[in-house]
Amino acid sequence: MKIVRFEWQGKVSWGILEDETIFALDGDLYDKFDRGKEMCRLSDVRLLAPAEPTTGVACGRNYMDHIKEMDWPVPEEPNLFFKPANTVIGPADDIIYPAISTDLRYEAELCLVIKKLARNVPEEKAMDYVLGYTCGNDVTAIDWFIKSQGLDLTRTKACDTAGPLGPWLVTDIDPHNVAIKGRVNGETRQDSHTSLMIFRVSRLIRDITAFLTLRPGDVVWTGTPKGGASPVKMGDVIEVEIEGIGILKNKIVAPK
Amino acid sequence: MKIVRFEWQGKVSWGILEDETIFALDGDLYDKFDRGKEMCRLSDVRLLAPAEPTTGVACGRNYMDHIKEMDWPVPEEPNLFFKPANTVIGPADDIIYPAISTDLRYEAELCLVIKKLARNVPEEKAMDYVLGYTCGNDVTAIDWFIKSQGLDLTRTKACDTAGPLGPWLVTDIDPHNVAIKGRVNGETRQDSHTSLMIFRVSRLIRDITAFLTLRPGDVVWTGTPKGGASPVKMGDVIEVEIEGIGILKNKIVAPK
Repeated sequence: MKIVRFEWQGKVSWGILEDETIFALDGDLYDKFDRGKEMCRLSDVRLLAPAEPTTGVACGRNYMDHIKEMDWPVPEEPNLFFKPANTVIGPADDIIYPAISTDLRYEAELCLVIKKLARNVPEEKAMDYVLGYTCGNDVTAIDWFIKSQGLDLTRTKACDTAGPLGPWLVTDIDPHNVAIKGRVNGETRQDSHTSLMIFRVSRLIRDITAFLTLRPGDVVWTGTPKGGASPVKMGDVIEVEIEGIGILKNKIVAPK
Repeated sequence: MKIVRFEWQGKVSWGILEDETIFALDGDLYDKFDRGKEMCRLSDVRLLAPAEPTTGVACGRNYMDHIKEMDWPVPEEPNLFFKPANTVIGPADDIIYPAISTDLRYEAELCLVIKKLARNVPEEKAMDYVLGYTCGNDVTAIDWFIKSQGLDLTRTKACDTAGPLGPWLVTDIDPHNVAIKGRVNGETRQDSHTSLMIFRVSRLIRDITAFLTLRPGDVVWTGTPKGGASPVKMGDVIEVEIEGIGILKNKIVAPK
């Protein structure tokens, strides 16, 4: 099932997408819901980020091909950092090139949205806490990472608009068995597969909820594959494509 | 003026505290408000954290006496990290010793709460964005800091309940001219002064809002003085006292 969040006729709603038609989502997104009446066409709406997180937690260095490419040691446990709510934009929004950076990068990622309050979740129950999956772009001000020797993940990862999500949630993919690609202005920069993920979704949920309670709508970022941290500039159009989900496409614009 | 957030007769409210009496806060906390009718006595209520942040941003290594004590270089710009909403508890709540840590520390800090949407705020206007000041306890799982060589500020700083705030907001102190103290079980561990702050409130607001939009209710943590990162254990009672504000007191309890 595809779940969309959208603005239509001046109102923000969640809905269910089938082909090009959006149906009402009747019930509670985070509990039980059904497909309601037909509302509109996909082309009629402005798609919004398919998540309203209180927080986002991301895992760095989580793909074997990226680890090898960068000649990093294989991590023994997930490297975690925050992508807070100020980073979130949707598929119809622009990425604002941060005024504090002169070396912006992009990273294609599979993201998941949390379905219910998650605290101390064991691995074997973790998948029950996933509402769905979407494409994410972990926009990164790598100059702050370099000059801080990795200590300042705050400015590096959490600039306003540095966390595009979309185009919608998909509930029924195997998150560890889909192709993941990144393109800049149509040129393929990343072409990998989520089977290369080191710490899988259930392990990430376990390790995060061991210290931090995730709330319904919170987002977990699962890391980027080979070709990650690829340079981008003003005017570039970045696409993140994940098999079974779709394409998240955002342009980079100048600060206002 | 003292602004309190509290639970009374099953309802959560903001109010204005004068001596031991709480008055209604009539109007918009983040815009214009007046003292309303008398509601109750301070002793009748359960005090809550005087902030409802979407995020909290903290500055490490921000006191000259703590820098010298630790033999750290004086930072050229603020070291920033996140204290997200999951860390926030109030003066009537317990700190839960995180299951992931075996070496918990506490840090007395002056915190400020943001009054209005703050983006690209220049230093000379920054003070207009402050709603008020309160005491904060930056509870720190230092073992994660040590074993990650400072890279994992996520687990180090953002465990559930690791950010007590309170007992109330004070609007009319000079944030750079008050005594700040930390005590554990009545024993003084920190005894310093906010005049030793390196990056002052206006500079912190400028540097944070240069990349991240702060929202009304968000919290800025201004760092801890000499004696910071002092070890604490289960059962300890920690007090943070700031001149002109009051005392924030929380007990450390076992994970549930």
